Amino acid sequence: MNPPLKPGKVWLVGVGPGSPDLVTVRAMRALAAAEVWLVDDLIAPEMSCYASPGTHVEWVGKRGGRCSVSQERIQKLTLQHALAGRSVARVKGGDPLLFGRGGEEAAFLRGHGVAVEIVNGISSGIAAAQALGIALTHRAHCHGVTFVTGHTSAHGSPDWQALVRGGTTLVIYMGMSRLAAIRDGLLAAGMRSDMPAAVVMHAGSEQARSWTGTLGTLAEALAAGLASPAVMLVGGVVADTLQAVHAIVPDAGSLAA
Amino acid sequence: MNPPLKPGKVWLVGVGPGSPDLVTVRAMRALAAAEVWLVDDLIAPEMSCYASPGTHVEWVGKRGGRCSVSQERIQKLTLQHALAGRSVARVKGGDPLLFGRGGEEAAFLRGHGVAVEIVNGISSGIAAAQALGIALTHRAHCHGVTFVTGHTSAHGSPDWQALVRGGTTLVIYMGMSRLAAIRDGLLAAGMRSDMPAAVVMHAGSEQARSWTGTLGTLAEALAAGLASPAVMLVGGVVADTLQAVHAIVPDAGSLAA
Repeated sequence: MNPPLKPGKVWLVGVGPGSPDLVTVRAMRALAAAEVWLVDDLIAPEMSCYASPGTHVEWVGKRGGRCSVSQERIQKLTLQHALAGRSVARVKGGDPLLFGRGGEEAAFLRGHGVAVEIVNGISSGIAAAQALGIALTHRAHCHGVTFVTGHTSAHGSPDWQALVRGGTTLVIYMGMSRLAAIRDGLLAAGMRSDMPAAVVMHAGSEQARSWTGTLGTLAEALAAGLASPAVMLVGGVVADTLQAVHAIVPDAGSLAA
Repeated sequence: MNPPLKPGKVWLVGVGPGSPDLVTVRAMRALAAAEVWLVDDLIAPEMSCYASPGTHVEWVGKRGGRCSVSQERIQKLTLQHALAGRSVARVKGGDPLLFGRGGEEAAFLRGHGVAVEIVNGISSGIAAAQALGIALTHRAHCHGVTFVTGHTSAHGSPDWQALVRGGTTLVIYMGMSRLAAIRDGLLAAGMRSDMPAAVVMHAGSEQARSWTGTLGTLAEALAAGLASPAVMLVGGVVADTLQAVHAIVPDAGSLAA
Protein backbone atom coordinates (compact mmCIF):
# COMPACT_ATOMS: atom_id res chain seq x y z
CA MET A 1 0.00 0.00 0.00
CA ASN A 2 1.13 3.54 -0.75
CA PRO A 3 1.52 5.98 2.13
CA PRO A 4 -1.27 8.62 2.27
CA LEU A 5 -0.58 11.52 -0.07
CA LYS A 6 0.55 14.84 1.35
CA PRO A 7 -2.06 17.39 0.22
CA GLY A 8 -0.87 19.89 -2.35
CA LYS A 9 -0.61 23.54 -1.41
CA VAL A 10 -3.26 25.99 -2.57
CA TRP A 11 -2.49 29.57 -3.49
CA LEU A 12 -5.43 31.97 -3.62
CA VAL A 13 -3.87 34.32 -6.13
CA GLY A 14 -5.16 37.79 -6.90
CA VAL A 15 -3.97 38.64 -10.40
CA GLY A 16 -5.27 42.20 -10.34
CA PRO A 17 -7.80 43.93 -12.55
CA GLY A 18 -6.88 42.60 -15.99
CA SER A 19 -3.59 43.68 -17.51
CA PRO A 20 -0.96 40.95 -17.11
CA ASP A 21 1.57 43.63 -16.10
CA LEU A 22 -0.48 44.45 -12.99
CA VAL A 23 0.38 41.04 -11.52
CA THR A 24 2.87 41.00 -8.62
CA VAL A 25 6.11 39.05 -8.62
CA ARG A 26 4.77 36.85 -5.82
CA ALA A 27 1.66 36.04 -7.87
CA MET A 28 3.78 35.21 -10.93
CA ARG A 29 5.84 32.77 -8.86
CA ALA A 30 2.72 31.11 -7.42
CA LEU A 31 1.19 30.83 -10.90
CA ALA A 32 4.37 29.25 -12.24
CA ALA A 33 4.67 26.84 -9.31
CA ALA A 34 1.10 25.50 -9.40
CA GLU A 35 0.34 22.28 -11.28
CA VAL A 36 -3.37 23.13 -11.57
CA TRP A 37 -5.08 26.48 -12.22
CA LEU A 38 -8.74 26.96 -11.31
CA VAL A 39 -9.56 30.22 -13.02
CA ASP A 40 -12.41 32.71 -12.52
CA ASP A 41 -14.42 33.76 -15.54
CA LEU A 42 -13.34 37.37 -15.85
CA ILE A 43 -9.63 36.62 -15.99
CA ALA A 44 -7.97 37.76 -19.22
CA PRO A 45 -6.73 34.85 -21.38
CA GLU A 46 -3.38 36.70 -21.66
CA MET A 47 -2.76 35.72 -18.03
CA SER A 48 -1.86 32.24 -19.31
CA CYS A 49 1.58 33.65 -20.15
CA TYR A 50 2.41 32.93 -16.49
CA ALA A 51 1.58 29.20 -16.63
CA SER A 52 4.41 26.67 -16.64
CA PRO A 53 4.33 24.14 -19.50
CA GLY A 54 1.94 21.30 -18.75
CA THR A 55 -0.22 23.23 -16.30
CA HIS A 56 -3.77 21.85 -16.12
CA VAL A 57 -6.14 24.83 -16.51
CA GLU A 58 -9.88 24.76 -15.63
CA TRP A 59 -12.25 27.71 -15.98
CA VAL A 60 -14.68 27.80 -13.06
CA GLY A 61 -15.96 31.35 -13.13
CA LYS A 62 -19.15 33.08 -12.27
CA ARG A 63 -20.47 35.91 -14.36
CA GLY A 64 -22.90 38.60 -13.24
CA GLY A 65 -24.34 36.52 -10.43
CA ARG A 66 -25.19 33.60 -12.73
CA CYS A 67 -23.03 30.73 -11.58
CA SER A 68 -21.54 28.61 -14.29
CA VAL A 69 -19.91 26.63 -11.50
CA SER A 70 -21.29 27.06 -7.98
CA GLN A 71 -19.14 28.34 -5.14
CA GLU A 72 -19.54 24.99 -3.37
CA ARG A 73 -18.45 23.09 -6.46
CA ILE A 74 -15.39 25.33 -6.91
CA GLN A 75 -14.34 24.69 -3.33
CA LYS A 76 -14.81 20.94 -3.66
CA LEU A 77 -12.86 20.89 -6.92
CA THR A 78 -9.99 22.80 -5.32
CA LEU A 79 -9.99 20.40 -2.39
CA GLN A 80 -10.02 17.33 -4.65
CA HIS A 81 -6.96 18.50 -6.54
CA ALA A 82 -5.14 19.37 -3.31
CA LEU A 83 -5.99 16.04 -1.67
CA ALA A 84 -4.69 14.29 -4.78
CA GLY A 85 -1.33 15.89 -3.99
CA ARG A 86 -1.44 18.55 -6.68
CA SER A 87 -0.51 22.18 -6.03
CA VAL A 88 -3.32 24.51 -7.04
CA ALA A 89 -3.58 28.17 -7.98
CA ARG A 90 -7.09 29.56 -7.48
CA VAL A 91 -6.75 32.42 -9.95
CA LYS A 92 -8.95 35.37 -9.01
CA GLY A 93 -9.37 38.86 -10.40
CA GLY A 94 -8.46 41.80 -8.17
CA ASP A 95 -7.61 40.82 -4.60
CA PRO A 96 -8.95 37.60 -3.02
CA LEU A 97 -9.67 39.40 0.28
CA LEU A 98 -11.82 42.22 -1.14
CA PHE A 99 -15.16 40.83 -2.42
CA GLY A 100 -13.27 37.78 -3.66
CA ARG A 101 -14.64 35.13 -1.29
CA GLY A 102 -11.03 34.35 -0.47
CA GLY A 103 -11.87 34.14 3.22
CA GLU A 104 -14.50 31.47 2.65
CA GLU A 105 -12.32 29.40 0.35
CA ALA A 106 -9.32 29.62 2.67
CA ALA A 107 -11.38 28.61 5.73
CA PHE A 108 -12.89 25.63 3.87
CA LEU A 109 -9.51 24.35 2.69
CA ARG A 110 -7.75 24.88 6.01
CA GLY A 111 -10.61 23.02 7.67
CA HIS A 112 -9.61 20.02 5.56
CA GLY A 113 -5.94 20.26 6.45
CA VAL A 114 -4.80 21.94 3.25
CA ALA A 115 -2.13 24.64 3.45
CA VAL A 116 -3.35 27.90 1.91
CA GLU A 117 -1.35 30.97 1.00
CA ILE A 118 -3.14 34.14 -0.05
CA VAL A 119 -1.43 36.40 -2.57
CA ASN A 120 -2.74 39.98 -2.70
CA GLY A 121 -3.58 41.72 -5.95
CA ILE A 122 -4.59 45.16 -7.24
CA SER A 123 -8.34 45.60 -6.81
CA SER A 124 -10.41 47.06 -9.65
CA GLY A 125 -11.54 49.99 -7.49
CA ILE A 126 -8.03 51.33 -7.14
CA ALA A 127 -7.31 50.63 -10.80
CA ALA A 128 -10.42 52.67 -11.63
CA ALA A 129 -8.96 55.63 -9.76
CA GLN A 130 -5.76 55.22 -11.76
CA ALA A 131 -7.74 55.17 -15.02
CA LEU A 132 -9.48 58.40 -14.01
CA GLY A 133 -6.25 60.04 -12.88
CA ILE A 134 -7.61 60.75 -9.40
CA ALA A 135 -6.70 59.73 -5.87
CA LEU A 136 -9.27 57.88 -3.74
CA THR A 137 -8.35 60.00 -0.74
CA HIS A 138 -7.32 63.63 -0.57
CA ARG A 139 -6.61 65.64 2.57
CA ALA A 140 -8.91 68.40 1.33
CA HIS A 141 -11.89 66.16 0.59
CA CYS A 142 -12.22 63.23 2.96
CA HIS A 143 -10.82 61.01 5.68
CA GLY A 144 -10.89 57.87 3.64
CA VAL A 145 -12.59 55.60 1.17
CA THR A 146 -15.24 52.90 1.46
CA PHE A 147 -15.45 49.90 -0.84
CA VAL A 148 -18.96 48.41 -0.87
CA THR A 149 -20.88 45.97 -2.95
CA GLY A 150 -24.05 47.25 -4.57
CA HIS A 151 -25.17 43.69 -5.18
CA THR A 152 -28.29 42.68 -3.26
CA SER A 153 -27.65 39.88 -0.84
CA ALA A 154 -29.54 38.24 2.00
CA HIS A 155 -28.35 41.22 4.05
CA GLY A 156 -30.09 43.92 1.98
CA SER A 157 -28.54 47.17 0.80
CA PRO A 158 -25.66 49.00 2.39
CA ASP A 159 -26.73 51.66 4.89
CA TRP A 160 -26.45 54.57 2.42
CA GLN A 161 -27.50 57.04 5.11
CA ALA A 162 -24.52 56.12 7.29
CA LEU A 163 -22.12 55.91 4.37
CA VAL A 164 -23.10 59.37 3.11
CA ARG A 165 -22.76 60.81 6.61
CA GLY A 166 -19.35 59.16 6.95
CA GLY A 167 -18.14 61.37 4.13
CA THR A 168 -15.67 58.91 2.63
CA THR A 169 -15.23 58.44 -1.10
CA LEU A 170 -17.53 55.59 -2.17
CA VAL A 171 -16.30 52.87 -4.51
CA ILE A 172 -19.21 50.60 -5.42
CA TYR A 173 -18.52 47.15 -6.84
CA MET A 174 -21.04 44.98 -8.68
CA GLY A 175 -23.61 47.76 -8.78
CA MET A 176 -24.36 48.29 -12.48
CA SER A 177 -27.52 46.19 -12.51
CA ARG A 178 -28.86 48.26 -9.58
CA LEU A 179 -27.49 51.65 -10.65
CA ALA A 180 -30.81 53.55 -10.41
CA ALA A 181 -31.58 52.10 -6.97
CA ILE A 182 -28.12 53.01 -5.72
CA ARG A 183 -28.45 56.57 -7.07
CA ASP A 184 -31.86 56.90 -5.42
CA GLY A 185 -30.54 55.47 -2.17
CA LEU A 186 -27.70 58.02 -2.07
CA LEU A 187 -30.02 60.93 -2.96
CA ALA A 188 -32.53 59.84 -0.31
CA ALA A 189 -29.65 59.72 2.17
CA GLY A 190 -29.03 63.40 1.53
CA MET A 191 -26.13 63.30 -0.91
CA ARG A 192 -26.15 66.30 -3.29
CA SER A 193 -27.19 65.45 -6.83
CA ASP A 194 -24.19 67.41 -8.15
CA MET A 195 -21.74 65.21 -6.25
CA PRO A 196 -19.07 64.13 -8.77
CA ALA A 197 -19.43 60.52 -9.89
CA ALA A 198 -17.72 58.22 -12.36
CA VAL A 199 -18.04 54.73 -13.76
CA VAL A 200 -15.08 52.72 -15.01
CA MET A 201 -15.68 49.53 -16.97
CA HIS A 202 -12.87 46.98 -17.30
CA ALA A 203 -10.70 49.11 -15.00
CA GLY A 204 -7.03 48.21 -15.18
CA SER A 205 -7.30 46.37 -18.48
CA GLU A 206 -6.60 47.35 -22.07
CA GLN A 207 -10.37 47.62 -22.62
CA ALA A 208 -10.88 50.27 -19.90
CA ARG A 209 -13.68 52.74 -20.60
CA SER A 210 -14.96 55.46 -18.33
CA TRP A 211 -17.74 57.97 -17.84
CA THR A 212 -17.68 60.97 -15.51
CA GLY A 213 -20.58 63.16 -14.39
CA THR A 214 -22.53 63.59 -11.19
CA LEU A 215 -24.73 61.49 -8.94
CA GLY A 216 -27.79 63.06 -10.57
CA THR A 217 -26.69 62.13 -14.09
CA LEU A 218 -25.39 58.67 -13.19
CA ALA A 219 -27.92 56.88 -15.41
CA GLU A 220 -26.19 58.45 -18.44
CA ALA A 221 -23.36 55.99 -17.86
CA LEU A 222 -25.71 53.18 -18.85
CA ALA A 223 -26.82 55.11 -21.93
CA ALA A 224 -23.14 55.59 -22.79
CA GLY A 225 -22.79 51.83 -22.91
CA LEU A 226 -21.00 51.20 -19.63
CA ALA A 227 -21.95 47.85 -18.12
CA SER A 228 -20.65 45.08 -15.87
CA PRO A 229 -17.89 44.51 -14.94
CA ALA A 230 -17.59 48.10 -13.76
CA VAL A 231 -17.07 50.10 -10.59
CA MET A 232 -18.77 53.37 -9.64
CA LEU A 233 -16.91 56.10 -7.77
CA VAL A 234 -18.79 58.83 -5.92
CA GLY A 235 -17.27 61.71 -3.98
CA GLY A 236 -15.51 65.06 -4.07
CA VAL A 237 -12.23 63.54 -5.24
CA VAL A 238 -13.84 62.45 -8.51
CA ALA A 239 -14.02 66.12 -9.61
CA ASP A 240 -10.22 66.17 -9.79
CA THR A 241 -10.41 64.01 -12.87
CA LEU A 242 -11.87 66.91 -14.84
CA GLN A 243 -8.70 68.90 -14.41
CA ALA A 244 -6.39 65.95 -14.57
CA VAL A 245 -7.24 64.08 -17.74
CA HIS A 246 -9.01 64.78 -20.98
CA ALA A 247 -9.25 61.29 -22.35
CA ILE A 248 -8.86 57.88 -20.82
CA VAL A 249 -6.27 55.83 -22.58
CA PRO A 250 -5.02 52.50 -21.31
CA ASP A 251 -1.58 52.85 -19.80
CA ALA A 252 -0.73 49.19 -19.98
CA GLY A 253 1.12 49.30 -23.26
CA SER A 254 3.19 52.36 -22.54
CA LEU A 255 5.82 50.42 -20.66
CA ALA A 256 5.67 47.25 -22.68
CA ALA A 257 9.14 45.80 -22.94
CA MET B 1 21.21 77.79 -28.70
CA ASN B 2 19.85 74.38 -27.81
CA PRO B 3 16.17 73.70 -28.35
CA PRO B 4 14.14 73.65 -25.09
CA LEU B 5 14.35 70.29 -23.35
CA LYS B 6 11.38 67.96 -23.49
CA PRO B 7 10.39 67.31 -19.86
CA GLY B 8 11.07 63.80 -18.58
CA LYS B 9 8.17 61.56 -17.67
CA VAL B 10 7.29 60.98 -14.04
CA TRP B 11 5.96 57.69 -12.74
CA LEU B 12 4.24 57.77 -9.36
CA VAL B 13 5.02 54.18 -8.48
CA GLY B 14 3.38 52.27 -5.67
CA VAL B 15 5.79 49.50 -4.68
CA GLY B 16 3.43 47.88 -2.19
CA PRO B 17 3.80 47.27 1.53
CA GLY B 18 7.44 46.20 1.78
CA SER B 19 8.43 42.84 0.31
CA PRO B 20 10.08 43.30 -3.07
CA ASP B 21 8.01 40.39 -4.41
CA LEU B 22 4.79 42.37 -3.83
CA VAL B 23 5.80 44.78 -6.61
CA THR B 24 3.87 44.54 -9.90
CA VAL B 25 5.46 43.92 -13.27
CA ARG B 26 4.39 47.41 -14.38
CA ALA B 27 6.09 48.95 -11.34
CA MET B 28 9.28 46.96 -12.00
CA ARG B 29 9.39 48.28 -15.56
CA ALA B 30 8.83 51.88 -14.45
CA LEU B 31 11.54 51.52 -11.78
CA ALA B 32 13.97 50.15 -14.37
CA ALA B 33 13.13 52.85 -16.93
CA ALA B 34 13.55 55.85 -14.62
CA GLU B 35 16.87 57.71 -14.52
CA VAL B 36 16.10 59.23 -11.11
CA TRP B 37 14.39 57.70 -8.08
CA LEU B 38 12.90 59.94 -5.39
CA VAL B 39 12.19 57.49 -2.61
CA ASP B 40 9.92 57.70 0.45
CA ASP B 41 11.40 56.96 3.83
CA LEU B 42 9.63 53.71 4.64
CA ILE B 43 10.68 51.93 1.45
CA ALA B 44 12.76 48.80 2.07
CA PRO B 45 16.37 49.15 0.84
CA GLU B 46 15.92 45.76 -0.91
CA MET B 47 13.72 47.56 -3.44
CA SER B 48 16.92 48.86 -5.02
CA CYS B 49 17.21 45.49 -6.80
CA TYR B 50 14.87 47.02 -9.38
CA ALA B 51 17.09 50.01 -10.22
CA SER B 52 19.00 50.04 -13.50
CA PRO B 53 22.76 50.63 -13.25
CA GLY B 54 23.56 54.32 -12.88
CA THR B 55 20.18 55.31 -11.43
CA HIS B 56 20.40 58.44 -9.29
CA VAL B 57 18.61 57.66 -5.99
CA GLU B 58 17.48 60.30 -3.47
CA TRP B 59 15.67 59.57 -0.21
CA VAL B 60 13.00 62.18 0.45
CA GLY B 61 10.77 60.51 2.99
CA LYS B 62 8.62 61.62 5.83
CA ARG B 63 8.42 59.58 9.00
CA GLY B 64 5.61 59.64 11.56
CA GLY B 65 4.45 63.10 10.61
CA ARG B 66 7.89 64.67 11.06
CA CYS B 67 8.97 65.84 7.65
CA SER B 68 12.57 65.23 6.78
CA VAL B 69 11.78 66.79 3.40
CA SER B 70 8.56 68.80 3.08
CA GLN B 71 5.83 67.83 0.64
CA GLU B 72 6.40 71.09 -1.24
CA ARG B 73 10.12 70.44 -1.50
CA ILE B 74 9.52 66.89 -2.79
CA GLN B 75 7.20 68.19 -5.48
CA LYS B 76 9.67 70.89 -6.53
CA LEU B 77 12.53 68.40 -6.63
CA THR B 78 10.49 66.04 -8.82
CA LEU B 79 9.61 68.91 -11.14
CA GLN B 80 13.24 70.07 -11.38
CA HIS B 81 14.42 66.64 -12.45
CA ALA B 82 11.58 66.32 -14.98
CA LEU B 83 12.19 69.79 -16.45
CA ALA B 84 15.86 68.90 -16.81
CA GLY B 85 14.73 66.13 -19.14
CA ARG B 86 15.22 63.25 -16.72
CA SER B 87 12.65 60.50 -16.26
CA VAL B 88 11.69 60.16 -12.60
CA ALA B 89 10.21 57.41 -10.44
CA ARG B 90 8.53 58.79 -7.31
CA VAL B 91 8.80 55.60 -5.29
CA LYS B 92 6.00 55.29 -2.75
CA GLY B 93 4.94 52.57 -0.33
CA GLY B 94 1.54 50.95 -0.81
CA ASP B 95 -0.58 52.62 -3.49
CA PRO B 96 -0.08 56.28 -4.48
CA LEU B 97 -3.86 56.87 -4.63
CA LEU B 98 -4.70 55.64 -1.12
CA PHE B 99 -3.29 58.04 1.51
CA GLY B 100 -0.24 58.47 -0.70
CA ARG B 101 -0.69 62.11 -1.79
CA GLY B 102 -0.40 60.81 -5.33
CA GLY B 103 -3.29 63.01 -6.42
CA GLU B 104 -1.60 66.17 -5.20
CA GLU B 105 1.75 65.32 -6.76
CA ALA B 106 0.18 64.34 -10.08
CA ALA B 107 -1.90 67.55 -10.25
CA PHE B 108 1.16 69.70 -9.47
CA LEU B 109 3.30 68.06 -12.14
CA ARG B 110 0.58 68.03 -14.79
CA GLY B 111 0.02 71.72 -14.05
CA HIS B 112 3.61 72.27 -15.16
CA GLY B 113 3.23 70.28 -18.36
CA VAL B 114 4.90 67.11 -17.11
CA ALA B 115 3.47 63.75 -18.19
CA VAL B 116 2.58 61.62 -15.18
CA GLU B 117 1.71 57.94 -15.05
CA ILE B 118 0.42 56.41 -11.85
CA VAL B 119 1.27 52.79 -11.12
CA ASN B 120 -0.94 51.08 -8.53
CA GLY B 121 0.48 49.02 -5.68
CA ILE B 122 -0.69 46.74 -2.86
CA SER B 123 -1.78 48.85 0.09
CA SER B 124 -0.68 47.93 3.61
CA GLY B 125 -4.30 47.51 4.76
CA ILE B 126 -4.92 44.64 2.40
CA ALA B 127 -1.51 43.15 3.17
CA ALA B 128 -2.49 43.29 6.84
CA ALA B 129 -5.54 41.16 6.10
CA GLN B 130 -3.29 38.68 4.31
CA ALA B 131 -0.94 38.56 7.30
CA LEU B 132 -3.90 37.80 9.59
CA GLY B 133 -5.36 35.22 7.21
CA ILE B 134 -8.72 37.00 7.01
CA ALA B 135 -10.79 38.63 4.28
CA LEU B 136 -11.68 42.31 4.59
CA THR B 137 -15.20 41.57 3.41
CA HIS B 138 -17.38 38.55 4.05
CA ARG B 139 -20.96 38.06 2.94
CA ALA B 140 -21.93 37.05 6.46
CA HIS B 141 -20.40 40.06 8.21
CA CYS B 142 -20.56 43.25 6.18
CA HIS B 143 -21.21 45.06 2.92
CA GLY B 144 -17.71 46.39 2.56
CA VAL B 145 -14.62 47.91 4.05
CA THR B 146 -13.59 51.47 4.90
CA PHE B 147 -10.00 52.68 4.84
CA VAL B 148 -9.55 55.78 7.00
CA THR B 149 -6.69 57.73 8.44
CA GLY B 150 -6.60 58.08 12.20
CA HIS B 151 -4.11 60.91 11.90
CA THR B 152 -5.44 64.26 13.11
CA SER B 153 -5.58 66.83 10.35
CA ALA B 154 -7.10 70.25 9.89
CA HIS B 155 -10.34 68.38 9.23
CA GLY B 156 -10.58 66.72 12.65
CA SER B 157 -11.37 63.07 13.32
CA PRO B 158 -13.33 60.74 11.07
CA ASP B 159 -17.06 60.62 11.93
CA TRP B 160 -16.80 57.44 14.02
CA GLN B 161 -20.56 57.50 14.68
CA ALA B 162 -21.34 57.27 10.97
CA LEU B 163 -18.59 54.74 10.30
CA VAL B 164 -19.80 52.45 13.08
CA ARG B 165 -23.38 52.73 11.84
CA GLY B 166 -22.21 51.95 8.31
CA GLY B 167 -21.14 48.54 9.53
CA THR B 168 -18.16 48.12 7.24
CA THR B 169 -14.88 46.60 8.35
CA LEU B 170 -12.63 49.48 9.47
CA VAL B 171 -8.99 49.63 8.40
CA ILE B 172 -7.30 52.52 10.16
CA TYR B 173 -4.01 53.88 8.81
CA MET B 174 -1.59 56.11 10.72
CA GLY B 175 -3.52 55.71 13.96
CA MET B 176 -1.02 54.24 16.41
CA SER B 177 -0.15 57.55 18.07
CA ARG B 178 -3.87 58.16 18.68
CA LEU B 179 -4.87 54.59 19.49
CA ALA B 180 -6.63 55.37 22.79
CA ALA B 181 -8.59 58.25 21.26
CA ILE B 182 -9.67 56.07 18.34
CA ARG B 183 -10.78 53.28 20.70
CA ASP B 184 -12.72 55.80 22.80
CA GLY B 185 -14.28 57.33 19.69
CA LEU B 186 -15.49 53.95 18.47
CA LEU B 187 -16.83 52.97 21.92
CA ALA B 188 -18.62 56.33 22.27
CA ALA B 189 -20.12 55.72 18.82
CA GLY B 190 -21.74 52.58 20.16
CA MET B 191 -19.37 49.89 18.92
CA ARG B 192 -19.29 46.85 21.24
CA SER B 193 -16.12 46.57 23.31
CA ASP B 194 -15.86 42.89 22.35
CA MET B 195 -15.73 43.72 18.62
CA PRO B 196 -12.74 41.81 17.20
CA ALA B 197 -9.74 44.02 16.49
CA ALA B 198 -6.18 43.54 15.27
CA VAL B 199 -3.03 45.53 14.70
CA VAL B 200 -0.45 44.61 12.07
CA MET B 201 2.93 46.32 12.09
CA HIS B 202 5.09 46.27 8.95
CA ALA B 203 2.27 44.45 7.10
CA GLY B 204 3.44 42.82 3.90
CA SER B 205 7.11 42.86 4.83
CA GLU B 206 9.44 40.28 6.30
CA GLN B 207 9.24 42.11 9.62
CA ALA B 208 5.43 41.74 9.93
CA ARG B 209 4.14 41.43 13.50
CA SER B 210 0.55 41.29 14.62
CA TRP B 211 -1.71 41.44 17.64
CA THR B 212 -5.32 40.31 17.82
CA GLY B 213 -7.90 41.03 20.49
CA THR B 214 -10.94 43.23 20.81
CA LEU B 215 -11.75 46.92 20.64
CA GLY B 216 -11.81 47.00 24.44
CA THR B 217 -8.34 45.50 24.77
CA LEU B 218 -6.79 47.47 21.89
CA ALA B 219 -4.30 49.27 24.13
CA GLU B 220 -2.63 45.91 24.79
CA ALA B 221 -1.25 46.14 21.26
CA LEU B 222 0.92 49.05 22.39
CA ALA B 223 2.06 47.11 25.46
CA ALA B 224 2.93 44.21 23.14
CA GLY B 225 5.32 46.54 21.32
CA LEU B 226 3.34 47.28 18.16
CA ALA B 227 4.03 50.76 16.86
CA SER B 228 4.07 52.80 13.63
CA PRO B 229 4.03 51.93 10.81
CA ALA B 230 0.99 49.80 11.55
CA VAL B 231 -2.65 49.43 10.57
CA MET B 232 -5.57 48.62 12.86
CA LEU B 233 -8.43 46.42 11.69
CA VAL B 234 -11.78 46.45 13.49
CA GLY B 235 -14.83 44.38 12.60
CA GLY B 236 -16.54 41.02 12.65
CA VAL B 237 -14.25 39.60 9.95
CA VAL B 238 -11.24 39.94 12.26
CA ALA B 239 -12.59 37.09 14.41
CA ASP B 240 -11.99 34.70 11.52
CA THR B 241 -8.28 35.00 12.16
CA LEU B 242 -8.67 33.06 15.38
CA GLN B 243 -9.79 29.98 13.50
CA ALA B 244 -7.58 30.57 10.50
CA VAL B 245 -4.08 31.00 11.85
CA HIS B 246 -2.23 30.18 15.00
CA ALA B 247 0.91 32.14 14.38
CA ILE B 248 1.81 34.89 11.98
CA VAL B 249 4.76 34.02 9.84
CA PRO B 250 5.93 36.06 6.87
CA ASP B 251 4.97 34.38 3.64
CA ALA B 252 7.44 36.28 1.50
CA GLY B 253 10.20 33.72 1.59
CA SER B 254 8.06 30.69 0.88
CA LEU B 255 8.06 31.27 -2.85
CA ALA B 256 11.59 32.60 -3.18
CA ALA B 257 13.10 31.42 -6.42
